[in-house]
Amino acid sequence: MIDKLAVIGVGLIGSSLSLALKQASAVRQVIGYGRNRQNLEKGLELGALDAIGEDIGDCVDGADMIVVAVPLGAMRGVLAEIAPAVGADAVITDVGSAKGSVVAAARAELGERMPRFVPGHPIAGTEKSGVEAGFASLYQGRRVILTPLAETAADASERVARMWRDCGAIVEHLSVEHHDKVLAATSHLPHMLAYALVHHLSHLNDHEEIFRYAAGGFRDFTRIASSDPVMWRDVCLSNGAALLELMRQYQQELDRIAAAIEAGDAERLLKLFGRAKSERDSLIGNC
Amino acid sequence: MIDKLAVIGVGLIGSSLSLALKQASAVRQVIGYGRNRQNLEKGLELGALDAIGEDIGDCVDGADMIVVAVPLGAMRGVLAEIAPAVGADAVITDVGSAKGSVVAAARAELGERMPRFVPGHPIAGTEKSGVEAGFASLYQGRRVILTPLAETAADASERVARMWRDCGAIVEHLSVEHHDKVLAATSHLPHMLAYALVHHLSHLNDHEEIFRYAAGGFRDFTRIASSDPVMWRDVCLSNGAALLELMRQYQQELDRIAAAIEAGDAERLLKLFGRAKSERDSLIGNC
Repeated sequence: MIDKLAVIGVGLIGSSLSLALKQASAVRQVIGYGRNRQNLEKGLELGALDAIGEDIGDCVDGADMIVVAVPLGAMRGVLAEIAPAVGADAVITDVGSAKGSVVAAARAELGERMPRFVPGHPIAGTEKSGVEAGFASLYQGRRVILTPLAETAADASERVARMWRDCGAIVEHLSVEHHDKVLAATSHLPHMLAYALVHHLSHLNDHEEIFRYAAGGFRDFTRIASSDPVMWRDVCLSNGAALLELMRQYQQELDRIAAAIEAGDAERLLKLFGRAKSERDSLIGNC
Repeated sequence: MIDKLAVIGVGLIGSSLSLALKQASAVRQVIGYGRNRQNLEKGLELGALDAIGEDIGDCVDGADMIVVAVPLGAMRGVLAEIAPAVGADAVITDVGSAKGSVVAAARAELGERMPRFVPGHPIAGTEKSGVEAGFASLYQGRRVILTPLAETAADASERVARMWRDCGAIVEHLSVEHHDKVLAATSHLPHMLAYALVHHLSHLNDHEEIFRYAAGGFRDFTRIASSDPVMWRDVCLSNGAALLELMRQYQQELDRIAAAIEAGDAERLLKLFGRAKSERDSLIGNC
């Protein structure tokens, strides 16, 4: 049971966490802090928050669990602001989509509280953002990756794991580097590909007509291009190295497909599409 | 009311058409032809077919509507086989995802029946294939593009339009060239991108683990990579020129994003993602 949960940044992820913990009766009180007052009041209204922190220090003061759910680019500033107010036994965690940059920020800002910091990342979300987008079942059956460090206190790590399990999530552990490499492949690269497609098509002369003839496949394929631009700008800047390496490899893959099309190499195309289909069907299921 | 509908190639598209027309009481009898006997028997069992044509000539003989729903690569051979058996007043249409190659095949094979041929393309489907994947509501509210030619008989074109409207579809007309350019952008290119991604990831050492951490966004993004490899091989070969041009442009777009990431150009990334998001949200809706 969490006594006082401080949520810094009350968007889709933060409000869903709060709603899930409340539904599981795993938290007594949730206090939220954010830059947008209207958003926080909406959080009160929707029952995601019990109170609004007037300032960030007030918000974390006395909290036994502090979840930082701001875009990656705002992470270091927030950690610097909360550090002086965090209690000795409190646990701090985050939900950032890249972990290397968050760990660097925490090392720079948290000082003696560093062992209480547990880097985390719920592999869940939708392309929607904001507190109104939150819902209690977002984490049901989804994976949450924790990347505890050598200096992370075992009890802190265990409390964060319990919090996510209380939301219905499956908690797993990876190293920071491994997390950032895996997520670049399954999340960061696909977002770049979808943004690039929609951005490119938006510059064609007949773009309105083009979108008119888009079928369900296009809608699904481009859904992630409706994601929050600030969040994704920050992911690019935080996990640039792993992402750029994959983008380079991906371009080579596209080159090979283009070469096969140009050469009319039916056999090669069939083999390539066949392998992709069977990989997807077997590893994610035909859905 | 169609009296005898001949469906050549009874997969997702052909069987859904038949089921929709039957539900609308817009057809008296549906006869199917295909290479896979088991599949055709499944079609009878599921009520998509009333009879199986023992040979292709028998199937189209006496049919007032003939729908060729085979992969693009098989189109010319089928048109050559049916040409001698098509009645003078019968209408022939197809459902191919690219129209230029089909029109060339029809011009080469249909001879004096050419004015009875109406090139068509329902913008509907799922990543599933085969007769079992068919369902009556597949075309409800979806667009069907017809690309009639100068020589196409007006009554033939009108009968094909009526058939699709009876299935609940919205019928629109485009030129062959325009269709192939628009579809390259909204369908053919996205399929290449999804196949390329899954194919590339399938070669990474830790690919099973990578897919394990895939969230809903990845599932949606790669859904079209579960599509039928034969169909997509044929689309590549049939609409190669338009597709290659778009792939080249798309690679340049990716280059620009990679350059912005490499340069840490936050402003440019935010602008690019923001434009993509607002374009998608406004033209396809935030869903």
